[in-house]
Amino acid sequence: MPQFGPVVAPDAGVRAEAEARQLRLTKPAGALGRLEVLGNWVSACQGVCPPRQFERARVVVFAGDHGVARHGVSAYPSEVTAQMVANFLAGGAAVNALARLAGASVRVVDIAVGGDTDPSVSAYKVMRASGSIDREDALNEKQVRAALAAGRAIADEEIDGGADLLIAGDMGIGNTTPATVLIATLTDTEPVLAVGRGTGVDDAGWMRKAAAVRDAMWRARPHRNDPVALLRVAAGADFAAAAGYLARAAARRTPVILDGVVITAAALVAEMLAPGAREWWVAGHRSTEPAHQMALTKLGLSPLLDMDMRLGEGSGALTALPVLRAAVATLGEMATFDEAGVSTAEAPSEVGS
Amino acid sequence: MPQFGPVVAPDAGVRAEAEARQLRLTKPAGALGRLEVLGNWVSACQGVCPPRQFERARVVVFAGDHGVARHGVSAYPSEVTAQMVANFLAGGAAVNALARLAGASVRVVDIAVGGDTDPSVSAYKVMRASGSIDREDALNEKQVRAALAAGRAIADEEIDGGADLLIAGDMGIGNTTPATVLIATLTDTEPVLAVGRGTGVDDAGWMRKAAAVRDAMWRARPHRNDPVALLRVAAGADFAAAAGYLARAAARRTPVILDGVVITAAALVAEMLAPGAREWWVAGHRSTEPAHQMALTKLGLSPLLDMDMRLGEGSGALTALPVLRAAVATLGEMATFDEAGVSTAEAPSEVGS
Repeated sequence: MPQFGPVVAPDAGVRAEAEARQLRLTKPAGALGRLEVLGNWVSACQGVCPPRQFERARVVVFAGDHGVARHGVSAYPSEVTAQMVANFLAGGAAVNALARLAGASVRVVDIAVGGDTDPSVSAYKVMRASGSIDREDALNEKQVRAALAAGRAIADEEIDGGADLLIAGDMGIGNTTPATVLIATLTDTEPVLAVGRGTGVDDAGWMRKAAAVRDAMWRARPHRNDPVALLRVAAGADFAAAAGYLARAAARRTPVILDGVVITAAALVAEMLAPGAREWWVAGHRSTEPAHQMALTKLGLSPLLDMDMRLGEGSGALTALPVLRAAVATLGEMATFDEAGVSTAEAPSEVGS
Repeated sequence: MPQFGPVVAPDAGVRAEAEARQLRLTKPAGALGRLEVLGNWVSACQGVCPPRQFERARVVVFAGDHGVARHGVSAYPSEVTAQMVANFLAGGAAVNALARLAGASVRVVDIAVGGDTDPSVSAYKVMRASGSIDREDALNEKQVRAALAAGRAIADEEIDGGADLLIAGDMGIGNTTPATVLIATLTDTEPVLAVGRGTGVDDAGWMRKAAAVRDAMWRARPHRNDPVALLRVAAGADFAAAAGYLARAAARRTPVILDGVVITAAALVAEMLAPGAREWWVAGHRSTEPAHQMALTKLGLSPLLDMDMRLGEGSGALTALPVLRAAVATLGEMATFDEAGVSTAEAPSEVGS
């Protein structure tokens, strides 16, 4: 089984240094709220105060098809997965527009797309579509190992290539079904509370999806303490690759912005594979999928944005990236009280006059 | 009294065109959530679909001192206002760091700073510190007219100079006290529910502030239907200038991102001066000041961010600016289903199989 290396926490000493610096900047103590907490976290991740602005933010979109999509759980046919991979490569998707704006670049990897994709993105392809998890395993033992190793290798490639911030995104018709199975299983939640509408299924589709989730949860529950078995029985190769990538990023001390319900489900598994990994992650947003908040709560993460988004691809994380950049910019660039010649807080001169 | 011109609503026809375009973009209908609503609003404001990315976003920071600050309502002495104006000009404040990051430029205007400021920012100076509103008028009739006219002229200068998005920010020790008075008066709220800690006063300071707000509200209440009298009796020249600027921006069909409690208080008055102006505004964030949410509710605006910020200067609006840019980028740059050759939603091929 691939190993991800021990996870060391972000540097507490540097975090304390950042907290002390925040108090010297020309603003009332705490006045930038969560921006201050985020800036201190980036400092701790980078091991340096003030932090450096991100110079190479990279989005990796994990694409895969899911056999369960054949059973009416999505509003879209599975062909759309390969079509959207082509759209990513042509630069026409939301992830492309948002990455250009936020100063990030996008890599797409075909892990388990049903159709053929461009050779430039299929080097890590493990299989063509995962099994239908309501009735069969998503993939076999050998395939799950290959997918985990692919995710680890992709993280290594990106970090060795200079990435200083990683984002994970997803593309795969039907993929909110295994995401919901993973999250509901790991948070011990009733299926009907966790199932959302994904790309937008109607009421009948929602009922088929809830039934598929319930059936898959029966199959998954015995493996709830075994992350690799969970991926095999009830998730898919794209989930395994994303989990390997997230675990490896943490072991390599690289901060990550999580995206929506699919990536956050993979993150729950990654935290099992590499305990402590969550300290290297920030939650970009809260989507409209009910299971997403359950996973964020389990991970102890509070989302930066709440914009009713539910697209995946990394779109929520990329919309949040400028907020993280703002945290770095204020901690890194603001003048201190001394530098600016500004008076600090004091008792007012004529109290009660 | 300065007139601001009639306010025409953003173009409903273009908004409908944008809504229709959203449905053709390569994503499930509605999957970008609030980003879609925001993008459609920008299209309607610009009168063109797809919208154009903002090329000249401008922040105007309205600086002024407040006599009530002599009475222990703030954690900082009034000298800090002029010191921070100098810090803005030197580029060392939060507003500067955030503007650089978000692709905006900053203009500071001294409307009523107690001390001397650089001649480059004092052309519209109306007075040196407003009166202490718990016991006297903030300014006289002539001064309030001059301040309103200054705000209008500043908006005209910016829009004539090519600004396609305006932000208002504030700087002024003690200015959350008149902001709270305006909001509590206009929303008929008990002072103790509306008073926050501003820059961070202690319990004794909070009690002094609550007493000052209560006393000022007694003076303000008879004028609650007269926006100009309210500014004169219970606000200040900086509030009047910001209100004039916000009203004029709407009359000139220029979208605005509102900032925190001070600017939103001015916005409540601007909506009285130029009814319908609020349709040209989006709320950047929700601050920790309780009166802020009351004002947003009254205006019918839902904040983009909720980051526990409470700095002013335009910092919340600037942190939100990239979110608005993301809305423009997705609506403006994404491929349509036809262009990308992606299948649209349909009944799954093997439902129930």
